Amino acid sequence: MPDQSSVPAATLTEIRDLLKRLPGPDLEAGSAAEVRQRELLKPPGALGRLEEIAVWLATWQGRAHPRIERPHVAVFAGSHGVASRGVSAYPPEVTQQMVGAFVNGLAAVNQLAAETDADLRVYEMALELPTGDITQGPAMGEEDTAHAMAYGMMAIEEGLDVVALGEMGIGNTTAAAALACGLFGGAAEDWVGPGTGLDAQGERRKVEAVSKALQANAGALSDPLTALAALGGRELAAIAGAVLACRIARVPVLLDGYACSVAAAVLHKADPRALDHCLVAHCSAEPGHARLLQLLDKRPLLDFAMRLGEGSGAALAVPLLKAACAVHNGMATFAEAGVSGRAQ
Amino acid sequence: MPDQSSVPAATLTEIRDLLKRLPGPDLEAGSAAEVRQRELLKPPGALGRLEEIAVWLATWQGRAHPRIERPHVAVFAGSHGVASRGVSAYPPEVTQQMVGAFVNGLAAVNQLAAETDADLRVYEMALELPTGDITQGPAMGEEDTAHAMAYGMMAIEEGLDVVALGEMGIGNTTAAAALACGLFGGAAEDWVGPGTGLDAQGERRKVEAVSKALQANAGALSDPLTALAALGGRELAAIAGAVLACRIARVPVLLDGYACSVAAAVLHKADPRALDHCLVAHCSAEPGHARLLQLLDKRPLLDFAMRLGEGSGAALAVPLLKAACAVHNGMATFAEAGVSGRAQ
Repeated sequence: MPDQSSVPAATLTEIRDLLKRLPGPDLEAGSAAEVRQRELLKPPGALGRLEEIAVWLATWQGRAHPRIERPHVAVFAGSHGVASRGVSAYPPEVTQQMVGAFVNGLAAVNQLAAETDADLRVYEMALELPTGDITQGPAMGEEDTAHAMAYGMMAIEEGLDVVALGEMGIGNTTAAAALACGLFGGAAEDWVGPGTGLDAQGERRKVEAVSKALQANAGALSDPLTALAALGGRELAAIAGAVLACRIARVPVLLDGYACSVAAAVLHKADPRALDHCLVAHCSAEPGHARLLQLLDKRPLLDFAMRLGEGSGAALAVPLLKAACAVHNGMATFAEAGVSGRAQ
Repeated sequence: MPDQSSVPAATLTEIRDLLKRLPGPDLEAGSAAEVRQRELLKPPGALGRLEEIAVWLATWQGRAHPRIERPHVAVFAGSHGVASRGVSAYPPEVTQQMVGAFVNGLAAVNQLAAETDADLRVYEMALELPTGDITQGPAMGEEDTAHAMAYGMMAIEEGLDVVALGEMGIGNTTAAAALACGLFGGAAEDWVGPGTGLDAQGERRKVEAVSKALQANAGALSDPLTALAALGGRELAAIAGAVLACRIARVPVLLDGYACSVAAAVLHKADPRALDHCLVAHCSAEPGHARLLQLLDKRPLLDFAMRLGEGSGAALAVPLLKAACAVHNGMATFAEAGVSGRAQ
């Protein structure tokens, strides 16, 4: 885990400036990949989404032959003041304990990352200092938010083939629900779900916490980064930073479930093109996720009713990207295979 | 490719007898896997479908710790008399050419099998002798059908961890549509789609061919195996045989797309429990597939709008099964990890 004190100073103003000059897609690489797909030994389009993934990877990796040789899983953990409000089925100390489990290779994401030969890194963000209780006021100040985003940006290196992002933080689906509601509107109920497994009473407490958080932070919702500061959390800010850094470094991103996608949606709210280099790995069982994905115009790769977080769904989807590269790069063309083309 | 002349004699009567004494699930292994899933370091059910897959694999492999170390992809190729009726975008000789491409490692399924370390075998079934034109009469006699099923059964060995099944055969979505319509009713239009990429005129010819086939074979539809003989093809019969042999050998099966699922559906028609050891890897873009999956009560793992056949979707889904095993076997329990349980 990198030392947080070494993160370069950044301000939300500097980050807003970065958001104004996002690099676009490499259309030349994408077109070259499309041409290749049409020549491969299959009816045009017959590999469906697998073809789209290959072309998308080419576009954002900036090479006609995309590859996933160095998949990278990054999990950010943060600690939430709102966790003391009975909004999770698990006690707040589980965040720190789960970080220990990640470090010791014991959790789901460890197995999933290992299975697809991915490098897994866990980033622990001042767990001993929970963010402010959002039912009472802002989670973070602007400086803390900018620092957390910069920390997430530092987790990204040039040359990575794909980054699968995930989070851990007891209470963070409450923060995510409040943030989604603050960014996109609707009622608190629209964005709240059972999270790790709340009962109906717990879910009512969660809806109440989200409603209070929106009232307590009503003045902070006109700007996406200010909303992130008010309603988010450090790991959510870090994910937003990592997504932004990936865009700048031309690294495609796999987003995980609800909290992760809400964190990324902060950037979408600033610029609707900001997540074009991201695929959503799966549709979470958390009901707000499907609603969010519709707003983001994202089709998830998998629909496995998962709701664990910790990057598990994102890591699970890496082999699908590898498969897309394998067919794209490894198949012969009709000409190379000596197979007859269409009769018509 | 094994020598077809070495296939032991079998009759449809013998195969009907096998269908009457299908082995059931290993409920003890399945329950043990369920217990383990509840103890693992995650909220109960939080890995959704991944948990279900692990328990299902345990049930059908007959071991509480399922594994996918030897995935096996089997592709059967057959040649269809109806292919001369202009029902495919590609000429009939493509079947033989594609078998050559499989043998030389050039096709999509080769890359997908290699990517997941699966053993790929291709079974060529008398390609020089197309089956009868189903618009005029039966595709095969009972003996030919039984022989093809036995051939498919021989492709299965005890001890395989999973078998992903696929097919190749220009014209076989026409046979599959006719067979599905013969087995499950409805109109020809309900079961016909563009296949490898027919235009609207071609699709009309295909609907007409299916309608004629159903008329020409109206007397053969009361029994599923007789329907398979009348409207199917050798590779479809072999797939039905392989699915049956997997059940007997306790080998879980991944079914591919439309033609493959229709072949398996022959067994379902004989006994609705006959496909309990099968998962459907993906929902094909061929519109009849979703209809069929509803009738079979099967939820596909992936929805990638693929329509290539050749086992490509089944091979693509193997890593998802591997991932399910990895989390099931590799994760720690709450107790092992020293993480607090639910607060409630």
